[in-house]
Amino acid sequence: MTRNLERRKGKQACEILQELDLDAWLIWVRETAQMADPVLKVILGSDLVWQSALIFTKQGEKLAIVGNFDADGIEELNLFDRIIPYTQSIRKTLLGELERINPRHIALNYSQNDVASDGLTVGMRTLLKEYLKDTPYFERFVSAESLISRLRGRKIPAETSRVQKAVKITEQIFSDAVDFLRVGLTEHQIHGFFHQRMKEYGVTSAWEAERNPAVDAGPNKQFGHAGPTDNRTKTGHLLHFDFGVRYQGFCSDIQRMFFFGEKKEIPEEVQAAFETVRDAITAAARFVKAGRIGHEVDNVARSFIQERGFEEYQHALGHQVGRNVHDGGTLLAPLWDRYRESPRGEVEAGNVFTLELYVTTKNYGQVSLEENIVITKTGCRFLSNPQQELICITPKR
Amino acid sequence: MTRNLERRKGKQACEILQELDLDAWLIWVRETAQMADPVLKVILGSDLVWQSALIFTKQGEKLAIVGNFDADGIEELNLFDRIIPYTQSIRKTLLGELERINPRHIALNYSQNDVASDGLTVGMRTLLKEYLKDTPYFERFVSAESLISRLRGRKIPAETSRVQKAVKITEQIFSDAVDFLRVGLTEHQIHGFFHQRMKEYGVTSAWEAERNPAVDAGPNKQFGHAGPTDNRTKTGHLLHFDFGVRYQGFCSDIQRMFFFGEKKEIPEEVQAAFETVRDAITAAARFVKAGRIGHEVDNVARSFIQERGFEEYQHALGHQVGRNVHDGGTLLAPLWDRYRESPRGEVEAGNVFTLELYVTTKNYGQVSLEENIVITKTGCRFLSNPQQELICITPKR
Repeated sequence: MTRNLERRKGKQACEILQELDLDAWLIWVRETAQMADPVLKVILGSDLVWQSALIFTKQGEKLAIVGNFDADGIEELNLFDRIIPYTQSIRKTLLGELERINPRHIALNYSQNDVASDGLTVGMRTLLKEYLKDTPYFERFVSAESLISRLRGRKIPAETSRVQKAVKITEQIFSDAVDFLRVGLTEHQIHGFFHQRMKEYGVTSAWEAERNPAVDAGPNKQFGHAGPTDNRTKTGHLLHFDFGVRYQGFCSDIQRMFFFGEKKEIPEEVQAAFETVRDAITAAARFVKAGRIGHEVDNVARSFIQERGFEEYQHALGHQVGRNVHDGGTLLAPLWDRYRESPRGEVEAGNVFTLELYVTTKNYGQVSLEENIVITKTGCRFLSNPQQELICITPKR
Repeated sequence: MTRNLERRKGKQACEILQELDLDAWLIWVRETAQMADPVLKVILGSDLVWQSALIFTKQGEKLAIVGNFDADGIEELNLFDRIIPYTQSIRKTLLGELERINPRHIALNYSQNDVASDGLTVGMRTLLKEYLKDTPYFERFVSAESLISRLRGRKIPAETSRVQKAVKITEQIFSDAVDFLRVGLTEHQIHGFFHQRMKEYGVTSAWEAERNPAVDAGPNKQFGHAGPTDNRTKTGHLLHFDFGVRYQGFCSDIQRMFFFGEKKEIPEEVQAAFETVRDAITAAARFVKAGRIGHEVDNVARSFIQERGFEEYQHALGHQVGRNVHDGGTLLAPLWDRYRESPRGEVEAGNVFTLELYVTTKNYGQVSLEENIVITKTGCRFLSNPQQELICITPKR
């Protein structure tokens, strides 16, 4: 049961070490079923119980020092050149391997900016410091943020195609919903329908099931991460979804807007808001390509809607999507404190991003859309079919 | 949709703060769908996207500072006295609340010993240091280990009864397996049967599904966390399981031994090994009670089997079980380096522990059992029905 995808990501990690001129990468974890460094899903896909050191080097060496009860399970995955089991203490073995490799720098998983690169806990860091005291190695640690951000962000084709499949299933469920939706349904009922369909299509929720999809019926709910309520769909009202599924470990994240009534009944301010959001996404998609800086891309959409007289959206235009719905790395976001350094990163070919934003109408609440794209050298390719007009739900005959 | 259990645990947290004379507890997290502080399951049960500060005080105040998109979802849970949403930066609000509370000590989730108390990442710690520079608060942080270990360990009745239910379903599946098992099945087939039953009983896997149950047929596999193989059950061989389910968020963790043949055909060395393991568990169960020290309890079983000429088992006698199958806190373990300080902890009333150990026979591989108990003031109560004899699988007529 070789883990092919994880194996290729391990190889990619070694290549990125070379590119960054980093000698080694140490992943230092324990009891990962309770507290998992997020990068383990990318390069291991299994849990480790005892204190474990996974080491990747610039020379392409892949090494695992793991507890003796973990060793057989890790062996089966066929991911490492060498697996060294230990019984009572990992210290001596870890030290021996570091002495042999003698890396000038060792990338370690800590980061203020990027949760996906911040898998090392404070207790595990202290432990490492203790194990390595009186050695030169503790001083050689550097943040693995650039490494992990490249590793997660640069989707290999096998990864993009899983996201693509997740997006297709998401769109299929939205399409199924057209037949189901009618005036008078509660958000809870609609939420239930989406879950039934996810089950039928064999996918799971891309985030907390209770709040996925976010279903917002009518003008009085601020879009966010709240769960469904007993609000009901009404003629002349909007219905908003934020919905994502997980297919073979990879996520989609799509927002769609429905209107209860005939196309000709769409209020002017709603139509104007919809077109502004749609066109702001299009403008950002036309602008983005490998080499652009995160906040520059956000700014295209943000200034687009501001020029049309709307208030700016209170979130980022885009986050990366992959094994996690918020997959870390460069953000398409303004230079706000809470986004730290992430908006200063460069967009790379192979990155999968959301493009999402909302504007607020006077009488009909918010209008919000979200598409998924993959970055290419010269631009981007939509993984979703961008919503071009409000989906009108009219009484069934 | 008040989270009743989590609400009671929040109250319990404030009481433990009082007991420990700690003024406040700060849980400091972000993007918890990717990297979740393990304690969030205990006291929140939901994800937080933005940087968030959950604060509990000795006076019983429960406070959440969360991103504006998270606020509604958290409000619904009815867990906090006050929820303060922020938009661009959490810094000012956090600082204001710390100034108001002015705690002498603030418990923070870091620990070398206990993964369940080590939810703070290195990047988040650095961020906190930055936010709190030029204030007295960063110097007031202390480890929340004793708090969390008490909070997780002291099961309230609603928690113990969920573990109890998980144990009962586990035992039901072992009982179902008696009819299913026969000579000539592969470990994979048996593993499949257990998963089918879990589905029928509406429970999920207490650990990685691929390796749960561990199924070990015959003498040549070292018990551990390896997945099932194509080894087949054979007449005269042993079959070992390590199996746990999760019921309403709480786990069981049970080992059972089967023998293929009539009772009278059990080889003498197998029977002696089985009785040694069973009786070592009984001896430990008789010894354990509130107030015992972890390694003392382990030593009862360890010296029991050594006195009977067996080599000591290469793991702990017992770990706590709860929301996680390895639930942190005090361990019933020897004073080995890899267990850090955990074996020095005191066993408390309400703790749920495993009692598990193996011995190795000359010709039939390992014999291993595992029971689940809850600690009382005067002793312990078994949550499982301790296995008294090998379960014999004879040809079906």
